[in-house]
Formats: sequence, C-alpha cells, structure tokens
Amino acid sequence: MEAIEDIAFGATFLGCGGGGHTYIAELQLAQALAEGADIEVIAADDLNDDDLAVAVGRMGAPSVQKEKYPNGEEGVAGLQQIERLLGKPVSAIFPVEIGGQNGLSAFLLAAQCGLPVVDCDGMGRAFPEAHMVSFNIFGCRASPVVFTDESGTCVSMEFDDNSQEERLGRSLTVAMGGSCHVIDYPLTGRELKQFAVKESISVARGIGRSVRNAKRNGQDLFQAIFSYLNGVEGYQHAFSLFDGKIIDLQRGIENGFSKGRVILEGIEGQQGRFEIEIQNENLIARQDGRVVAMVPDIISILDIESAETINTENLKYGQRVKVVGTSVPALLRMPEALKILGPSAFSMNCAYQPIEKIANLNG
Amino acid sequence: MEAIEDIAFGATFLGCGGGGHTYIAELQLAQALAEGADIEVIAADDLNDDDLAVAVGRMGAPSVQKEKYPNGEEGVAGLQQIERLLGKPVSAIFPVEIGGQNGLSAFLLAAQCGLPVVDCDGMGRAFPEAHMVSFNIFGCRASPVVFTDESGTCVSMEFDDNSQEERLGRSLTVAMGGSCHVIDYPLTGRELKQFAVKESISVARGIGRSVRNAKRNGQDLFQAIFSYLNGVEGYQHAFSLFDGKIIDLQRGIENGFSKGRVILEGIEGQQGRFEIEIQNENLIARQDGRVVAMVPDIISILDIESAETINTENLKYGQRVKVVGTSVPALLRMPEALKILGPSAFSMNCAYQPIEKIANLNG
Repeated sequence: MEAIEDIAFGATFLGCGGGGHTYIAELQLAQALAEGADIEVIAADDLNDDDLAVAVGRMGAPSVQKEKYPNGEEGVAGLQQIERLLGKPVSAIFPVEIGGQNGLSAFLLAAQCGLPVVDCDGMGRAFPEAHMVSFNIFGCRASPVVFTDESGTCVSMEFDDNSQEERLGRSLTVAMGGSCHVIDYPLTGRELKQFAVKESISVARGIGRSVRNAKRNGQDLFQAIFSYLNGVEGYQHAFSLFDGKIIDLQRGIENGFSKGRVILEGIEGQQGRFEIEIQNENLIARQDGRVVAMVPDIISILDIESAETINTENLKYGQRVKVVGTSVPALLRMPEALKILGPSAFSMNCAYQPIEKIANLNG
Repeated sequence: MEAIEDIAFGATFLGCGGGGHTYIAELQLAQALAEGADIEVIAADDLNDDDLAVAVGRMGAPSVQKEKYPNGEEGVAGLQQIERLLGKPVSAIFPVEIGGQNGLSAFLLAAQCGLPVVDCDGMGRAFPEAHMVSFNIFGCRASPVVFTDESGTCVSMEFDDNSQEERLGRSLTVAMGGSCHVIDYPLTGRELKQFAVKESISVARGIGRSVRNAKRNGQDLFQAIFSYLNGVEGYQHAFSLFDGKIIDLQRGIENGFSKGRVILEGIEGQQGRFEIEIQNENLIARQDGRVVAMVPDIISILDIESAETINTENLKYGQRVKVVGTSVPALLRMPEALKILGPSAFSMNCAYQPIEKIANLNG
C-alpha cells in the first residue's frame, strides 16, 4: 500500500490539478489489497508485439466525481464489454493518463481481474480532453470505447475518427451525470512500445517516494521533488514558479469541464501577482501578466507545508501554496503533439515556449 | 413498389406529423427492390415463441433528417452489432413505430438482410420519445440499443432502466448531428405477440390503398380514408376535425425535438380558429380554445386537395388543410399506457378524453 500511496502522491503532482482526486481510488485499492489482491507492474517492453492492451481512465469533471461515487465494478464491466466487442482477451491494461485518479484507475481493475499494469500512459501528465493523448497524436485507433457508470449502464462506441470520442463521449458523460469510467485505445504491444509515454508510473512513484523519504529525514520536501525529477529524462526541468496565497478564485462547470482561474499574491518574500487558467487542469501561468509556463508543461499548485498537490476542485481562497513547473517528455513537445496539446489547442493565442527556456530568458 | 407507396402514404397519416418524411426511405426501397430484393411480411402470430426479433427506427428531429441524409448502411451495421452483443441471430424485424419514415425503416433493412418484417409496431402511430412504446409500457427491456449514423459511427447502450434510452440516447443523437438509426427492444416472439400493436403495417397499407383506389375511381379521398378506417378495430373512429388555412406557424429545435404550434383559420364554410401543439408529432388540437383531440389519439394535417398528410417540418404558412382525428387501438388507451402516452406525459394539464367521446359531447 506504501507503493500505491507514493504513486497517488506523484500522480496528483503530474495531474496538474486535474485527473480527479485519488482518495476514492486509494480507498478502493486498500480494500482490494486487504482482500489479498496482487498487482503486477510490467514494462512496456515486456509485452509481446501482438498482445492486446487497453487504456483505463475516467471522463468527466473532477468536481462531479466528488459527489458521484463509483461502485467499483465499472472497470470490470467495461473490460468484459471491450473483450466481447473485440472478440479477443485483453493481456494487460494501462492508465490512459498518469495524472490524478486516472493514474490509479488501472490498478483497481488490475487487482480485480488479475491483469498486469503496463508502466506507461498516454499523456505523461493529465489533459482535459479525450483526444489529447499520444496514441491519438500518432494515429492509433481509439475505438471501441466503453463507458460504464455506477448504475450499471454500459455504452460502447465505435468510429473511425478519434475526435468522436471527445464529441460524443462528452455529451454522453454529461447525460450520465457528469462522470463515468472509460476503457479505450485497444492497442497491440507493438503500438504501446512505440507511442506510449513510458515509465510514467515509475516517475509518479519516484515523486511520492522522494517526499516520503524527505519527510522521514526532516529534509525540504520541495527540494526532494526537484532533486528526484532533475534526474528523470523529460521531467528534468523542475523548479518553483511562485510562492503565494490564493486571493481570487473563479470556477464553474461548463460543457462538462471544470473551468476557471486562480489568482495568487506573493508571500514569504515573493513579490507580485500570479495567475493560472484552468480547464480541469492548470493550463497557463502568468506572473505579473507575463507567461511563465504553459501546456503541455506541468503546472502544479502544491500546499506550501505538506507539498501535496491541490487539485483544481480543492483550491480554496486563502490557501498558501507553491506553484511548481516541470518540463515534459520530448514526445509531448513534438510539433504534431503541440498541435493537439499545446496552447493553441486551448484557444490560447500564444506560441509554445518550453518552461526551461522561459526561465532562462527571465533569469 | 405500389405496396411500399401505399404503406408510406398510410404511415405518414399514422405519423401524426412526425416520424420523419418517407421520401428518402422510399427512394432507398425503390433501389433495393429494383436490384431484386424481396421483402416478406409475416404476422406476429407466425413467430415462434423463442424467436428473436428487434425493433428498427430512427431517433432525432425530423427537420434535421431532411438535410442529414442516411447512407443506407446504418441498419445493417446496427443489426450486426446487436447480434454480436446478444450472441444470437435475429429472426425478424419490426418498425418501432409505424408512423412516418420509421414505418418504412424496417423494410429497407429487410431488403438488405433478407429477414421478414413482422406486421406490428410499438406505437400504432408515432410518438416523439423513445420510451413511448408499448413494449416499455408493459415492461420489456429496451437494451441493448444500437445507434448508427451515416459516418459509420456505432454506439451501443446497455442499461436496466428503459428511461436511459431517451435520456442518454437523446443527448447522443444531438451530438451525432440530430438524427441517427436505432435498433432496440430485442424481444422474443412471445413478447411481441403479447405487447405489440398488431397489424399496423396492414392498416398503413390499407389507408394508402383506399386513397389510391378512390383517386382511380374519382371518389372523395377523405371519405375513402374514413370508410376504410371505420372498419378497422381501434382506428374505427376517424373523421374530419377542421378545414382551414395555416395563418400562423411557430417551430424550432429544442433539446433535439421539433417543437411548435400551428394556427388555422376556417375555410370552405368552416368557422372559427383551430390550433395544434407540436412536439415532433401533433399533440393536442383545440377549436376556438376547446380541446377536440389529444394524444394518444391521432391528429393528422392533410392537404385538402391530395389528402396527403403534411409532416410538421413541411407545414407552411397559407397551406389549405383538413385536420383529421382518429382513435387508436385499445392497448394505447389503457391506464398504464396513458401515463406514458397521454397528455400528462407531455406536461399538458388535462385529463385524456377519447376523441369519439369529445365529438359526441360537442356534437
């Protein structure tokens, strides 16, 4: 369970405020492990080229998930349905996104069905829309997609155009009450090795473990995160962007997304104002009006005492926080990826600049 | 093809202004028949008790279907999917509603896949919502439901609560562009014999044939319809409600439905004003403010020259029409049916009164 807690801690950090809170998933996993379940994590390269693996996650506004609890059987029902539709057994599962609750959803299903979890995901963080995933960027087929919910409803979609998943699935999710379990991207081992963000579960666990060790040894928690990430290829540029207190907070549900904006005022010697725009995840950060970080780079808001990442739905007026920025794996910064994951994909009128480059320019 | 044209004519009449225009379905059928397809119509009682039969129809606003054409393969794709989900071959198909285009959709699929069409439906007319069907009223399971569209998208839904079909399916249909093909209600022969509105295809054909013959013989077209229906149990109370000219027409798309209101001014000696409320179908008719007919009884607006029923989406200012009212089979007037099909189901604050009773009171 320590490993699960570490992964949950790191997945929340990589979630950039989105991907849903891990609390319910942790409770479900604690119960499954207490009942003797065993979870195996394998590397993507351990898969045979012809193995069938599917992605596991949730769709919907994280703030809705706080009130609309899963019944725990959604994943099993979805897995059975996708096997029925594909006429083939699934060999392994993986989180569609490592960020937040989605980073753990594959573990619960693994505990329930005995399948191994592949150490990878399709985002290396969290993103708000279904097509914002490396598999889609590189032309893999999303469908069939299976949506399940706590009432036992099961909806399967098959289409040629991956963008249908977001368009039809988002409407469906809203009609299903704002949140549901999703199984999609039935991929071969070959595809997964080529197009996944690899070792992202290990990275999440590493973040959690470094903070756990730092706590035990009385060391600086943030320094522990930065030191760990500085040694991880892709995530190596990790540093503090701003220390501040939340002085303004706007949030709402719009078309099934949590959208809003948070404004910080500097504390502990930090001067100025800091502003973050949100669509489920933290999208772009500005200090005194000047952009300092933007998607797909990671912007996470951490409690200044515990170094725990605060999800967008748990942000509160008056919280004292440290905003942390982190680079992402090169796969997510490729030109074809930036079209789908970069600022222009969120209707933001600015060209992508890597977080470390902006820091050097400003520094 | 004469039989198809007769059924289309009658289905449009029974559609009460809804169910979609039959024009595209007729063209598709003409092509299929020209290519040598053969369609067999069987009585519900010809089915074995354990045969599997499924309902065929469309969901969406009829006005959208005029611009979003089907590709003709939607039914075949849906049938294959429902057989895959049920793990069992389908023995026969039937229209979910006899009204409008839906009365013909089963024929195209029958021509394509060689299955017989059962002479029955679930409404005896057309209704705007998916759960307004005899099978639902009497507790049959709607799911799995398979939605397909002209882009090749296929969505399957499984749930315990039939009301999910309307709730989830309507949202999905809107996201799919406002109109899609639906296969649902996988029923046994036993269920179909018990809960279907029987011989509704024959009734549609009889209406069409009576007008065809009257035209040939120079007889009154409306009298031909009334004489035919007067001899058909359930539909035997059929008469003219009003002759008028359309002087006001309000229509719009709201939550995936065509909603509106049409106002007539008397012509040819007819005095007063006549008003009909619409939700895809004609729901309630008032003459000078007094209700003269209401759901589930049939209210159809016919061209005063050709006796062709004018669908709600084809109503136009200035049209000269005869409004015809017709009783419906006893199954649709049972107390459990009226809860789902009667005026209260459409938020109308009046108790159901059979059309023939209102006429006697007023007469």
